Amino acid sequence: MSPLKVSSRSNPNSVAGALVAVIREQGYAEIQAVGAGALNQAIKAIAIARGFVAPSGGDLVCAPAFTDIEINGEGRTALKLLIERKERK
Amino acid sequence: MSPLKVSSRSNPNSVAGALVAVIREQGYAEIQAVGAGALNQAIKAIAIARGFVAPSGGDLVCAPAFTDIEINGEGRTALKLLIERKERK
Repeated sequence: MSPLKVSSRSNPNSVAGALVAVIREQGYAEIQAVGAGALNQAIKAIAIARGFVAPSGGDLVCAPAFTDIEINGEGRTALKLLIERKERK
Repeated sequence: MSPLKVSSRSNPNSVAGALVAVIREQGYAEIQAVGAGALNQAIKAIAIARGFVAPSGGDLVCAPAFTDIEINGEGRTALKLLIERKERK
């Protein structure tokens, strides 16, 4: 599945819902965010999604990485967030 | 230990170094960021820190959460990032 693309105008609650649905389906999710505003909405969404899975005893963690993408023919650096269930100790 | 406070003017490389040092000492680290610019630097720092621990076979994950703080007597919502070593499956 291609990464969820989050922008600075994305609604963190909606992104959180999508995130949980994708993780339920394939075990993990990927978010791509370009710029500080987009990343802010993405991280808020993950904080909210943690609340969605908490009642069933789950938790989510994310691993950020840099990734090079192309927007309108120009190279940009985006942040890619890999979100998965937290492994039990 | 109190959380590392990251601002929009923080250098992600320096924060990454501090992060790895704190995690080495106490097993986890906490970052507090107020605003999109600060959060951007914090997440970049975590991406860089993952590169610092990768050569020894380690990896880091972060769990974001909202937290209420007070700045100059005004209530603000900050993001708190708990960073720890990734548990092996």
